[in-house]
Amino acid sequence: MAEAKPIRGVAVIGQSGGPTCVINQSLVGACLTLRRSRTITRVYGARHGVAGMLNQDFIDLSKEDPRLLRAVANTPSAGLGSVRKKVTPEECRRIFEVFRKHNVRFFFYIGGNDSAETAHIVNQMAREEGYELRAFHIPKTIDNDLRVTDHCPGYGSAAKFVAQAFMGDDLDNRSIPGIKINIVMGRHAGFLTAASVLGRARKDDGPHLVYLPERPFDTERFVADVEAVFRKLGRCVIAASEGISDANGELVLHKFAGSGEVDSHGNVQLSGTGALGDLLAQLLKKRLEEKFGKLRVRADTFGYLQRCFPGVVSEVDRKEAFEVGEAAAKFALSGNVDGSVAIRRKKGKTYAVEYFLTPLSAVAKETTRMPAHFINKEGNNATQAFVNYALPLAGELPAIAALKGRKVPKKH
Amino acid sequence: MAEAKPIRGVAVIGQSGGPTCVINQSLVGACLTLRRSRTITRVYGARHGVAGMLNQDFIDLSKEDPRLLRAVANTPSAGLGSVRKKVTPEECRRIFEVFRKHNVRFFFYIGGNDSAETAHIVNQMAREEGYELRAFHIPKTIDNDLRVTDHCPGYGSAAKFVAQAFMGDDLDNRSIPGIKINIVMGRHAGFLTAASVLGRARKDDGPHLVYLPERPFDTERFVADVEAVFRKLGRCVIAASEGISDANGELVLHKFAGSGEVDSHGNVQLSGTGALGDLLAQLLKKRLEEKFGKLRVRADTFGYLQRCFPGVVSEVDRKEAFEVGEAAAKFALSGNVDGSVAIRRKKGKTYAVEYFLTPLSAVAKETTRMPAHFINKEGNNATQAFVNYALPLAGELPAIAALKGRKVPKKH
Repeated sequence: MAEAKPIRGVAVIGQSGGPTCVINQSLVGACLTLRRSRTITRVYGARHGVAGMLNQDFIDLSKEDPRLLRAVANTPSAGLGSVRKKVTPEECRRIFEVFRKHNVRFFFYIGGNDSAETAHIVNQMAREEGYELRAFHIPKTIDNDLRVTDHCPGYGSAAKFVAQAFMGDDLDNRSIPGIKINIVMGRHAGFLTAASVLGRARKDDGPHLVYLPERPFDTERFVADVEAVFRKLGRCVIAASEGISDANGELVLHKFAGSGEVDSHGNVQLSGTGALGDLLAQLLKKRLEEKFGKLRVRADTFGYLQRCFPGVVSEVDRKEAFEVGEAAAKFALSGNVDGSVAIRRKKGKTYAVEYFLTPLSAVAKETTRMPAHFINKEGNNATQAFVNYALPLAGELPAIAALKGRKVPKKH
Repeated sequence: MAEAKPIRGVAVIGQSGGPTCVINQSLVGACLTLRRSRTITRVYGARHGVAGMLNQDFIDLSKEDPRLLRAVANTPSAGLGSVRKKVTPEECRRIFEVFRKHNVRFFFYIGGNDSAETAHIVNQMAREEGYELRAFHIPKTIDNDLRVTDHCPGYGSAAKFVAQAFMGDDLDNRSIPGIKINIVMGRHAGFLTAASVLGRARKDDGPHLVYLPERPFDTERFVADVEAVFRKLGRCVIAASEGISDANGELVLHKFAGSGEVDSHGNVQLSGTGALGDLLAQLLKKRLEEKFGKLRVRADTFGYLQRCFPGVVSEVDRKEAFEVGEAAAKFALSGNVDGSVAIRRKKGKTYAVEYFLTPLSAVAKETTRMPAHFINKEGNNATQAFVNYALPLAGELPAIAALKGRKVPKKH
């Protein structure tokens, strides 16, 4: 983050990892800001992140119509294409060769901790090779699991989707009572699963139980929790993270799914499978039908819908995603050498934020998890402190209403 | 549908079957209209459909605040509670006893063909027992599979959800290419699965393949279809109905799922399980990796999210759902004895509809399916004729845009 002497050259922007509803806001925020500077000779977009940098697969964003760029900003998913790839030192060297050929001096990588790590490695190697480069990470992840920052762009919109999905599903479950399990994305951090509670208003609104990867999942306690809710309400809506694990750290899913497919970052492929939900549903059916007789138990896995659903976007998230892109460009243009843009929540009653630069190494590699005060002591729900934290990020939820339901006296 | 002499008494409204985003519009449309008539002494809501009628579980809707009713109308799912239950003759007799006690003379049942059948049975038995009753069915189903009517309230909003889900998922698949299968609700009719195509704009937009229950599903042709798309585009997005069956009529799911749980209407429980998607994904992985090497194949099952997602509602659907409720009340108040409300699309360039009454027996029991001209001759996609039919029902979809992507010349 040291001040450096001015440098002129091409800026390259890339997008990496799972797309979000607002990742293009960051792209366009950075792009429009960079285009206004004389220091930047051209703004290139790398197709599919580092893959495009390796193969010189760039598109020129310098002349794209600003109105089109604004429309792209409002389009979910990565407009440049994304990639799940960690670069090797050899690939890093090839990226420099490409950067040298095109006089690329500014590198912006939009993504999660893996992308911060890539930016960090590229940056370190540039220094070793004596290649002058400015490298910036722009945060993005629906998992909300980056260190330093208060929260991550992309999370608010995914949280809004999950909150609305649970509002609808809880109403559905009220109308035809039973036990319903919904599996939510989030490998290690429970922020997105916890967002299931954001639409709760009445005392008996679901989800009634929330299982997070931060707390060991105990099968017997799970069955007892559900039994208690069902006994009281005659129904039960459950949110469970795809990443719930037992006390030994073994994924509950792995006890069932068998296959151990992993991506090149070593992340297990959890989404897109109904296995975990079905496992939990079968377990509850088996165990609770002994006590209650025939039960209606269902499971859904939200899957990819959570991260790219057009039309369900948090306004705060949309705005901030644009602003982190803009901030990254401004930090770069005002003489910073490298860093990751982070968000700080201002003190005060009204929600407001400011952006600052943090070292790439502070964000790379490791992720963070839900703090203890966001989880109840039983480890089966999110707290009001979490709601206070997350509700401003998800923004306004649809209004719903219930009939007063004045009972008609029975006649004999 | 014969004219009958005026009758005074209580009106009972019930909701049945799977809830939708707009089923409460029909409830409130009927309720507000009935409340304005002197013929109707009181408007009762039956909690959980026929279950509430059997147990005298009524709430009095006569005095609910109209503003609250309007807010309930805008709330997804069945505000009165719903039920999946077909009445036996014995239960029918018990319902008359209840109706007699409360002087119920008007009966409105909001639901699908099963609800029309219930209304039909109750109505026939009332006649046999010499009990004067007006019985009306108000159509509702996301499956869009009722006979006579041009389309069913509830379908448009679910179609909008499915269309938007595929828009987002296709963008997601563009950004990280691979093969993606999405399983859509619809046991016998493919209307909702076909709605997956409504957001397609560019030539290579997904879904690229659409498999409907109306056409026999052939595993070999499926694999060949996907291979052809993947060879051309390097990716493939697939929409498949939960109800796809082989040439012998056996559900593809059943070849895999084992369990044969059925509800009291004899409908197989298909939703809430990822089994079908996982089966198809495994099949493609096995067969296509022989040719292409390691492939990214994923499957999602949309499940219950499709029918009750707050905030994703078609304006046309919302309006028409209110109006079919209103129309049912008006038909009842203008002297009709029984019938099901149906929608007729007016001729002309601008979308417009009118409502008419059709005999209960014409809607009860049997359902309908997609007409042949809505399905391409290969049986793996929906036609433009379908889009022309369904797009006005789903209404406006979010605008999305792509970068022009002027390529930067490579340097050597």
